[in-house]
Amino acid sequence: MTLPLPPIPPLNRDSEAAARARQDTLTKPPGSLGRLESLAAQLAAITGQPIPTVARKAVIVMAGDHGVAASGVSAYPSAVTPQMVLNFVRGGAAVNVLARHAGARVVVVDVGVAADFDAHPGLLKRKIALGTQNLILGPAMTRAQAEAALQVGLDTVATEIDQGLDLVATGDMGIGNTTPSAAIVAAITGAPVAQVTGRGTGVDDAGLARKVAAIEQALSVNQPDPADALDVLTKVGGLEIAGLAGVMLGAAARRVPVVVDGFISGAAALIAAGLAPAVTGYLIPAHRSVEIGHRVLLAHLGLEPLFDLDLRLGEGTGAVLAFHLIEAAARLHAEMATFAEAGVSDKA
Amino acid sequence: MTLPLPPIPPLNRDSEAAARARQDTLTKPPGSLGRLESLAAQLAAITGQPIPTVARKAVIVMAGDHGVAASGVSAYPSAVTPQMVLNFVRGGAAVNVLARHAGARVVVVDVGVAADFDAHPGLLKRKIALGTQNLILGPAMTRAQAEAALQVGLDTVATEIDQGLDLVATGDMGIGNTTPSAAIVAAITGAPVAQVTGRGTGVDDAGLARKVAAIEQALSVNQPDPADALDVLTKVGGLEIAGLAGVMLGAAARRVPVVVDGFISGAAALIAAGLAPAVTGYLIPAHRSVEIGHRVLLAHLGLEPLFDLDLRLGEGTGAVLAFHLIEAAARLHAEMATFAEAGVSDKA
Repeated sequence: MTLPLPPIPPLNRDSEAAARARQDTLTKPPGSLGRLESLAAQLAAITGQPIPTVARKAVIVMAGDHGVAASGVSAYPSAVTPQMVLNFVRGGAAVNVLARHAGARVVVVDVGVAADFDAHPGLLKRKIALGTQNLILGPAMTRAQAEAALQVGLDTVATEIDQGLDLVATGDMGIGNTTPSAAIVAAITGAPVAQVTGRGTGVDDAGLARKVAAIEQALSVNQPDPADALDVLTKVGGLEIAGLAGVMLGAAARRVPVVVDGFISGAAALIAAGLAPAVTGYLIPAHRSVEIGHRVLLAHLGLEPLFDLDLRLGEGTGAVLAFHLIEAAARLHAEMATFAEAGVSDKA
Repeated sequence: MTLPLPPIPPLNRDSEAAARARQDTLTKPPGSLGRLESLAAQLAAITGQPIPTVARKAVIVMAGDHGVAASGVSAYPSAVTPQMVLNFVRGGAAVNVLARHAGARVVVVDVGVAADFDAHPGLLKRKIALGTQNLILGPAMTRAQAEAALQVGLDTVATEIDQGLDLVATGDMGIGNTTPSAAIVAAITGAPVAQVTGRGTGVDDAGLARKVAAIEQALSVNQPDPADALDVLTKVGGLEIAGLAGVMLGAAARRVPVVVDGFISGAAALIAAGLAPAVTGYLIPAHRSVEIGHRVLLAHLGLEPLFDLDLRLGEGTGAVLAFHLIEAAARLHAEMATFAEAGVSDKA
C-alpha cells in the first residue's frame, strides 16, 4: 500500500491500572458497575488519562453508493442515498436526533455518492467516485480509489480532533452497503456467505437469495486475499467503508476512542484491523445489530457490544446512542465519592 | 388489605396504534429502530399521548434495613445503609452521578433504615420501623407496617407527579436486601431458592450457602401464600421493597411510566403485579442484573430488559442509565423527519 498510515501508539497500561485501582475505592461493591468499570479502564488505556473525560463528541457519517444496488440486493433504490444525505444535512434523520440528544456534532461526508450535491455548510464534499462498480462483475474500486477513500477518513477525523474531540462514532449511509459488508466478513473470516448475509433494510426471501448469490459470485469473480485487507476492501468493499476504516485508524493514532456502530461500521473495523491490528484496542463496539453477520465479525475481532436493541438502521445511530453509556462510565469514574470521602464502611 | 390502592387505568391502545403508524412514516426502514420503536409505542400507550414527551425525570430511592443482615447474608454491615443514604443526600453515590448525567432528580426516602437521621433537605423522612425483623425467625413485618410502607411509595410518587414528572425510576438501598428479594421471587414464582439466590454485594461461597439456607428457612417458617402478594411482602419482604411497589402502583395510576431497576426493584414489581396485575404494562425493565434470580422474575412478569451491562449495584443506577435510551426513543418518535417532509423515496 502506498498510503502512509499513521502509527498507532500502544495502549497506556499504567493509566489503565490506575483507573482500575481507583474504581475499587469508589462507594460501591467492587465490580458492581460491571461493564461501566471496564469501559472507564479502557478509556484510561486509550487516552493515557487515569481519569479520562468524555465531553466533546462527534459522529462521522460516511456516504457512498454501490454498483451492486443495480442487482436487486436492496429494498430501496440508490436514489435514497443522496436523499438521506440531504436529510442528515437538514437535521431530520435518526442520527441527527440522537446526536442532539447526546450533545454530539454530526459530520456528513460524501465520499462516493452517485449524485452531485450543491454546497451545504454541513456537508463535506470529498467524493472519490460516483459510487463503486458492481462487485459481481469485477473489483468494486481501484486500489487508488480505496486508498483515497481511506485518506478521506484519516483527514476528516484529524480535522475533528484538531477542533477538540474526546469520542468519535462511525456512521454510514449507502443503499446496498450490507452486501459489500457481508462480502468483507465472508472474505476475511472465512464464514459461509449465507451465514453472514442478512436482510439489510428489509429485502424479502427472493431478495435475500439474490444477495447471497451476488456475494458468492463477487467472491468467486474477485478472489480477494483474506490476508490483504486493502485487497478485500478494493475488490468487494465500498467507498464509505474505506472512509470509516480511515476514521478508525486516524482516531487510534491520536488516542481518541472510536465507538463502532453496527454491521457496516463493523466491516470497516475488520478492514482497519487488517491494516493495523493495534486499532482494535481503540474500538468500543456499541451494539449488536440484527444483521446476522455482525455476530461473526464481532467474534472475529474479539469485541463485545454494549447492548442489543434490535437496531438495523446504520447512520451511526447505535454508536451515538452508546455515547451516553460511555460518558456515564467516565463520569462515574471521575465524580463518585470514595469510601474515605463519604465515610462509608468497606467490606465486612 | 385495608389500604385503598388507586385504580390503574387501561393502556391507551388508540394512542399506541397512532404511534406505531407514525413510526412507519419516519425516514428509516420500518422496524429498523427495533426496541426504540416499541418503546415509543409503549410510552404512547401508557401516557395516552400519540407523541409522548420524556423531559421531567426522577429516581426515587427507597432505603431500609433488614433484620436478616445479622445472619451473615451480606458482605457489608448494616451500618452501610445509613452511610450510603448520606452519600446520596450529598450527591456522591453512583445514582447521583448518573442522575446528573441524565438530567433527573434524586428523591431519597428513609422508609426503614435502622438509624436516626438529622433533617436533610434532600432526605424524605418516612421511617416505618428501624429495619425489618429477621425473616428467618418470623414475619419481617406486620401487615400494618407493609401497608404503611406501600403508602409511603404511593405518597412519594404522587408528590413528584404533582411537581411534574414524565418518567420515574425505582432505586433501592438496604444492606441484606437481595435476601428478601430472592425470598419473594422464590415464594411467588415457585422457583427453587438456590436458583434465584445470588451473591448480592459479593458474598463468598460460604456466605452464599448461608443465604440460601436462610431463605429456605424463612419460607419454611413463614409459609407465605404465593397468591397473596401482601402476605409475601409482609412475611419475607422489606420496607424499601414495599415502598418501591407503592411507587409503581402510584405511578401507573397516574399514567406515568416506571423504569424498573434490577433485582430488588424487580422483586417490588412482583409484589406490585400481585396486588394489581395491570401495573405490568406501565413498567419498563431497564437492565438484566448479575443476580441470577432476576432472569426468573423478569420471565415471570413477561418483561424484557433493555440492556445487560453486568450491573449489580442497585440504587436505581441501571434504571437511571436507561432514561437516556427511553428519552431517545421519544425524541426520535417526535423529531425525525417523515418520508414526505424529507423528500425521501419509500421502499422500491
